[in-house]
Amino acid sequence: MPTSETTVPDFYAVIPAGGAGTRLWPLSRAGAPKFLHDLTGSGRSLIQATADRVEPLSGAAGIVVVTGAAHAAAISEQLPGLDAANLLTEPSPRDSMAAIGLAAAVLEARHGDVVLGSFAADQVITGRPSFEQAVREGVAAAREGHVVTIGIAASRPSTAFGYIHGGETLGLDGAPSARHVLGFTEKPDATTAQRYLATGEYRWNAGMFITRTSVVLGHLARQRPALHDGLREIARAWDTPDRDAVVARVWPGLEKVAIDHAVAEPVADAGGVVMVPGNFGWDDVGDFNSLAALLPADDQSGSKVLGDAGDVVRVQSAGSVVVPAAGRVVTILGLDDVVVVDTPDALLVTTRARAQQVKDMVTELRDRGRDELL
Amino acid sequence: MPTSETTVPDFYAVIPAGGAGTRLWPLSRAGAPKFLHDLTGSGRSLIQATADRVEPLSGAAGIVVVTGAAHAAAISEQLPGLDAANLLTEPSPRDSMAAIGLAAAVLEARHGDVVLGSFAADQVITGRPSFEQAVREGVAAAREGHVVTIGIAASRPSTAFGYIHGGETLGLDGAPSARHVLGFTEKPDATTAQRYLATGEYRWNAGMFITRTSVVLGHLARQRPALHDGLREIARAWDTPDRDAVVARVWPGLEKVAIDHAVAEPVADAGGVVMVPGNFGWDDVGDFNSLAALLPADDQSGSKVLGDAGDVVRVQSAGSVVVPAAGRVVTILGLDDVVVVDTPDALLVTTRARAQQVKDMVTELRDRGRDELL
Repeated sequence: MPTSETTVPDFYAVIPAGGAGTRLWPLSRAGAPKFLHDLTGSGRSLIQATADRVEPLSGAAGIVVVTGAAHAAAISEQLPGLDAANLLTEPSPRDSMAAIGLAAAVLEARHGDVVLGSFAADQVITGRPSFEQAVREGVAAAREGHVVTIGIAASRPSTAFGYIHGGETLGLDGAPSARHVLGFTEKPDATTAQRYLATGEYRWNAGMFITRTSVVLGHLARQRPALHDGLREIARAWDTPDRDAVVARVWPGLEKVAIDHAVAEPVADAGGVVMVPGNFGWDDVGDFNSLAALLPADDQSGSKVLGDAGDVVRVQSAGSVVVPAAGRVVTILGLDDVVVVDTPDALLVTTRARAQQVKDMVTELRDRGRDELL
Repeated sequence: MPTSETTVPDFYAVIPAGGAGTRLWPLSRAGAPKFLHDLTGSGRSLIQATADRVEPLSGAAGIVVVTGAAHAAAISEQLPGLDAANLLTEPSPRDSMAAIGLAAAVLEARHGDVVLGSFAADQVITGRPSFEQAVREGVAAAREGHVVTIGIAASRPSTAFGYIHGGETLGLDGAPSARHVLGFTEKPDATTAQRYLATGEYRWNAGMFITRTSVVLGHLARQRPALHDGLREIARAWDTPDRDAVVARVWPGLEKVAIDHAVAEPVADAGGVVMVPGNFGWDDVGDFNSLAALLPADDQSGSKVLGDAGDVVRVQSAGSVVVPAAGRVVTILGLDDVVVVDTPDALLVTTRARAQQVKDMVTELRDRGRDELL
């Protein structure tokens, strides 16, 4: 299996950097979404860790970031090695198909038919050798014309993730573990998730896609011709003085659709998607409960701290998750499984059981007109 | 009954301002104890409210504050009408007998045999006419040579307060409701407290004493002669250039003892203490639960806020007590009866049921050497 130290020829790593992460409020904000934060205590933000992870495969010059204009400056600062031409800014969010399609069209306009892999900026991955091996296999399968996705070993019957139903292996050169995708499923209920795990045929969908630019754009042309044509038009103008004018004219009319719905699902139904199993640790850090799972225990009772553990003092408190991000001491007395997120302008106190509902607090603040806190 | 608008002749109001209020941490600190804080949202700190309450009785010139040197500047600032000569500073805490005895001895050295009433700086009282009436009765009884205490109507079988056991009325002129005190009791257990209430003979001990200076100092001379002699020696030097030298020499050797043990209890046993019933609202604001009882409800679920209620946002949360004292928004999701106290350098998250244990957090911080937070 190809796990050499060399980069993959004609391979580009596209990092879509979007999503507000409202279930991680008040740590994650509209102006500083979760991908800009170090959520694992590693010293690197999620987007920095993503770039660190793909660089051995794509090379620094092969990294492309697609993001909103509001975050371009912060990303440039966090990723000083990123080629400025490879920071593609969207004037407004148009979901993942427009973001990845724009990158594909710009890459093809610049380099011809190359392979791109799309890796979200806000995921946490452990086990880099396994990740690299999976991507190298995925690239080999993609060169054969397949749309490739990486399936994550489902370690529990999660109802928070979508699943990929895998079929027979294809026996591809350089991609021995690649297999057909029989279908994608949305987040299932608990019973269905349990059943999926029992079959051994399902893996988590991490939203990672590897494909030749010509392949994904070809599928897009058949599935969503207007979106395809708009993206091609923008890409042709991207590296010319006309870029701003064309983007201003065309972008607002682009369809908002996820790449899953626009390409992955219909192409899978037609037998054109394959899955490479990824045996690395993966989490999308969707809420404070999943964030807690990524942090080392701070004491015997499973308490977790993202930040300086010396700033947290607990008395008769077990299993708490504390983010002391305001430089103050956070003290907890007599409460178990509580979540305390302390930032300079806003404090959240809730429980681990309510982690998924933190977005309700963001909604409440929006309803109250407290936009400065969002 | 004497309830005129005029001040009481030869009456001085002594305000002992001590005690850290550790169960109100992190609002109350060693450097800024609870009497310096506005804990009721009235716009006046507890010591300011205390001075406001006694001034109609003693006049501004008749108010004497006894406090630690560390708090003298803050008190002068909060009480600009306080005569500088009436701010008696102790070099180190020596408990309530030394504080009140010092005031008595200094007052007697200055004014001869006068009446003093002692009213702690950190209590909350509602119903000022009833308070004034009780004090005027108490002064009348004190002039007859009694040590007088004010007994608070016990509205519940509290185990957090001491009790006064009242006997027959004395039929004193100007103090028709004054009655013998049969004894004082420490904080009782719940069963005993319930029994006390059932008899109708017990009232809460608010630690208020009214007495002639000669009477309290005479009792002290018999009960604790060394302490009496030391205080007399200091008082003689107080308004002379020798004050600092005498205080430095004598004060450190004074016995640390509460006025209750040194005078009130032994004198009550000998039949020398009388009680005037006080029918005003009273609380010692001992913890965040009792603080909550003093605040108006912020919503239908009994949630309380000390501060700007606009800085507190609750979703699916009932009965919380929030002190947003850091100027930030405090949000609570899915937790009932929680206590959140937010200050610029320290945050406390606990429950109303744990309010009495907040002092354990202070102990924990001291054990960790975090003295800057105490």
